[in-house]
Amino acid sequence: MTQAKKTITAAVLVIGDEILSGRTKDKNIGYIADYLADIGIDLCEVRVVADEEQDIVDAVNALRRRYTYLFTTGGIGPTHDDITADSVAKAMGVPLYEDERIIKLMLERLKPEDMNEARRRMARIPVGVEHVENKISKVPGFKIENVIVMAGVPSIMQAMLDAVAPRLETGAKMIVETLESVGVPEGEYAKGLGEIAASFAGVSIGSYPSFGEGRFKNNIVVRGKDSAQVSAALAAVAAMLEPLRAAREQS
Amino acid sequence: MTQAKKTITAAVLVIGDEILSGRTKDKNIGYIADYLADIGIDLCEVRVVADEEQDIVDAVNALRRRYTYLFTTGGIGPTHDDITADSVAKAMGVPLYEDERIIKLMLERLKPEDMNEARRRMARIPVGVEHVENKISKVPGFKIENVIVMAGVPSIMQAMLDAVAPRLETGAKMIVETLESVGVPEGEYAKGLGEIAASFAGVSIGSYPSFGEGRFKNNIVVRGKDSAQVSAALAAVAAMLEPLRAAREQS
Repeated sequence: MTQAKKTITAAVLVIGDEILSGRTKDKNIGYIADYLADIGIDLCEVRVVADEEQDIVDAVNALRRRYTYLFTTGGIGPTHDDITADSVAKAMGVPLYEDERIIKLMLERLKPEDMNEARRRMARIPVGVEHVENKISKVPGFKIENVIVMAGVPSIMQAMLDAVAPRLETGAKMIVETLESVGVPEGEYAKGLGEIAASFAGVSIGSYPSFGEGRFKNNIVVRGKDSAQVSAALAAVAAMLEPLRAAREQS
Repeated sequence: MTQAKKTITAAVLVIGDEILSGRTKDKNIGYIADYLADIGIDLCEVRVVADEEQDIVDAVNALRRRYTYLFTTGGIGPTHDDITADSVAKAMGVPLYEDERIIKLMLERLKPEDMNEARRRMARIPVGVEHVENKISKVPGFKIENVIVMAGVPSIMQAMLDAVAPRLETGAKMIVETLESVGVPEGEYAKGLGEIAASFAGVSIGSYPSFGEGRFKNNIVVRGKDSAQVSAALAAVAAMLEPLRAAREQS
């Protein structure tokens, strides 16, 4: 048996009134969830908070202390409602400074006479950070300790995730197998599924109904990091479902 | 001047491993955000947690104490991973019981011989709740004090939201006006916008860039509950943008 890899955990903090007001529909949570699952980081919690400094500070501190990594999205532009850098600096207890390298990056796309006070705000980052490159619009996000601060615009956030991913510690990937219950309602297999879930310690089993075209469809999802265990649990689920399905076909 | 209506706040707690693993893309947060905005409830925070009792208990207690209402989605089915009712009961310090009215509702769709232990779990709800009707699949959600427990399946959640909404206290609706910056980059109007935002106390102003087809588009959103204030702020933003736009057209 190989040495079990460490479990690496993460949280996402979405910062922005526009998500809470319903004006913008978040596209980042699902993308980051998939991305982290693919590289072997377990996303354990997500929060969405408004553009309020104390709310951001509290959430940053709660989440960075609890998980291996915290990813934030949103609030790093030049306008007055972009207060993520200030809030993260406050949470970490470090001062901000104007980073000359960022000013230089901005001047690659901007005439010197168009540089102004507001744009300079985008170069204000906490002391002691690493840049997280932004191949789309240049101004980088940053990583300070275990907190990764990214843009809210999806294409830029995605570029930043690509840039920072190689620098992150990752664990064993989650193996995910899905089985459709083909006509057996959740209420019929729930007891058997619970017994199987209880007997496989390193595996989590979920049952996910969806409703469409006037009927329910149920997917049973088996997740774990040990492929032998996932396979065994999956086989147990299939064996449990089979007689229920056969009985329904006969009835 | 009319008496200002009370501000009614809310949080959403999404319960489910399937969202965190990326397997299911949440469709409820955006829907609830729009819905609450429409009826005059301010959504202030969202959390997504895993199917872990202590995580759910902690989030329920943090959010129900802070906001007028807490809406939960997910985890109310018959399977072992459906632990929302137990977790909410634990958070509120009340026992669970099997509600005969729910058993009766279930028997409208189920043969008596198909009623089993797992299905009966769906009728286990905390003492002292009101039902939240479910016109789709009958088994109701529930409301206990200021916590509203709903299904995760979007169509059922939406039906439950319709059912509970008339019983909720609501405040003044947020008035939202959007102005496109038509070619003026965020960095150019950021300072002016910040000054306007600072001078209108009851109004919040956000600047939302989006990126597509190789260029940025910026929407400036003015939100507030007093229509005269929102109009005045909007006019101030338009007046501030106009010379910037004219200058760009000339250059």
